[in-house]
Amino acid sequence: MSAFGNRVFGEEINEKSLITAHAVNDQFGGVTVKMPLALHPIDAAVFGSALRSSISRWRQQGKKGIWLNLPIEMVNLVEAAVKEGFWYHHAEPKYLMLIYWIPRGAHTLPANASHRVGIGAFIMNEKRELLVVQEKYGALRGKGVWKFPTGTVEEGEDICAAAEREVKEETGIDAEFVEVLTFRQTHKSFFEKSDLFFVCMLRPLSFDIQKQDSEIEAAQWIPFEEYAAQPYVQKHELMKFINKLCLAKIDSGYSGFSAVPATSSSSSDKRSYLYMNTTKSYGAAQQGVINS
Amino acid sequence: MSAFGNRVFGEEINEKSLITAHAVNDQFGGVTVKMPLALHPIDAAVFGSALRSSISRWRQQGKKGIWLNLPIEMVNLVEAAVKEGFWYHHAEPKYLMLIYWIPRGAHTLPANASHRVGIGAFIMNEKRELLVVQEKYGALRGKGVWKFPTGTVEEGEDICAAAEREVKEETGIDAEFVEVLTFRQTHKSFFEKSDLFFVCMLRPLSFDIQKQDSEIEAAQWIPFEEYAAQPYVQKHELMKFINKLCLAKIDSGYSGFSAVPATSSSSSDKRSYLYMNTTKSYGAAQQGVINS
Repeated sequence: MSAFGNRVFGEEINEKSLITAHAVNDQFGGVTVKMPLALHPIDAAVFGSALRSSISRWRQQGKKGIWLNLPIEMVNLVEAAVKEGFWYHHAEPKYLMLIYWIPRGAHTLPANASHRVGIGAFIMNEKRELLVVQEKYGALRGKGVWKFPTGTVEEGEDICAAAEREVKEETGIDAEFVEVLTFRQTHKSFFEKSDLFFVCMLRPLSFDIQKQDSEIEAAQWIPFEEYAAQPYVQKHELMKFINKLCLAKIDSGYSGFSAVPATSSSSSDKRSYLYMNTTKSYGAAQQGVINS
Repeated sequence: MSAFGNRVFGEEINEKSLITAHAVNDQFGGVTVKMPLALHPIDAAVFGSALRSSISRWRQQGKKGIWLNLPIEMVNLVEAAVKEGFWYHHAEPKYLMLIYWIPRGAHTLPANASHRVGIGAFIMNEKRELLVVQEKYGALRGKGVWKFPTGTVEEGEDICAAAEREVKEETGIDAEFVEVLTFRQTHKSFFEKSDLFFVCMLRPLSFDIQKQDSEIEAAQWIPFEEYAAQPYVQKHELMKFINKLCLAKIDSGYSGFSAVPATSSSSSDKRSYLYMNTTKSYGAAQQGVINS
């Protein structure tokens, strides 16, 4: 049936398949419906009625979780879906995902993404000077505090790549990811979401700073001791402790986690990184050779 | 003004403040509006009109990002907000967060949570037997594959606690978190979201298995070699590699990251964990003494 055919609402058969025609079974006994934009606009009452009969049919089929993806252009259908018993699962700029659970009892559908991921970059030059910035916005605005370059890992971005990108964007410095020295998990850091913050050591490949204007007030190379002596840093046990780890990496052979390229199986071409201690040699699998 | 007062829509002053009365300035030059449930129901046309005049006022004030939190009960207002130029930022079961950007040019509002976080538990008893399970659902259903207990880190839950909880839930075994041996970041693993998967070593504190009925088909202690010899494991380079790391931890002194309790500042009572290599002693700050 063509997408256009679904718009002939007068015929009961088409209204019935308005939704089920776009339903795909999943491996957990559920159904995912992604309403195609080609059908826009759909009358909300027609949609509500079609949803009701679709749910009946899925119930007869013993289906469990129903996922309904509505593009933002179809915002007029959201209220109808909620009236039929759907609730919000997650939203992205261009769509809203709603869910419905058919069996009795509590649903077992997976939760939404729960964490934001950030990086802080520890970069030292050969004179033991640290690359630091002052930010234009946020809690430290106008306070003259020098800090590590930091930033958010974007959707689909590797942690190691994010560290290199943020340093380049904020300071113009080219740098190469070396290790995750430590990471910290905090909760309720952004609405109800949790946060994973990775302190990454990078090796500088260039040294002339060109700071970003939009978010960075100032950037410079600063003697490590001068950075560490700031009252703001001294006041925070955690920052002092992270400084110790950074110096331990430079001076005492501290081992963090390197990034080793990996694929999950021979049939998959998804690239990803495994972060691990590569100090000793654990088999021949390090440095990328676990790619199959 | 009382919440009830806002519902007297006949008076222009009340309609104007319908939204601005619930606006809170943020430190990034923006505004957050959380519409209180006490105002439900609000007429969608009235809300759209109030939103329009609120945006005008915020524009005059030089505001930037506008965050609008609509409880799911107020789903009838979502279409009006989108018509005024708002788009989706994120959603949770009970609310939808929409955003609007007043200045010209691309917005700089932070993205939604981008990662799901999972754990896999490596647990071995003194006979070098591994604690393994077969799952009732998912890609391996019915295939008879033995695997590490795995699970999702819940919102607000520590990684180390999640590993202990999942093992207890799936197998009934009490176990104590020891280390993160390695972690892996993958992309587009759940809709557009990325995934961080932490392989955790745990020390068993009990040995009698009581498997969970709802999600687990079977659970047992199995000789490590028998687990590793499964065709499914042999086929996956990554799984074979993780097995090597696990054995390196048991036999050759591999160092992962321990969990060290931390607080961010003396004024904050937020508890969190820093994950780091604690093999050597880097200052007196380990094992919880960085709590201030």
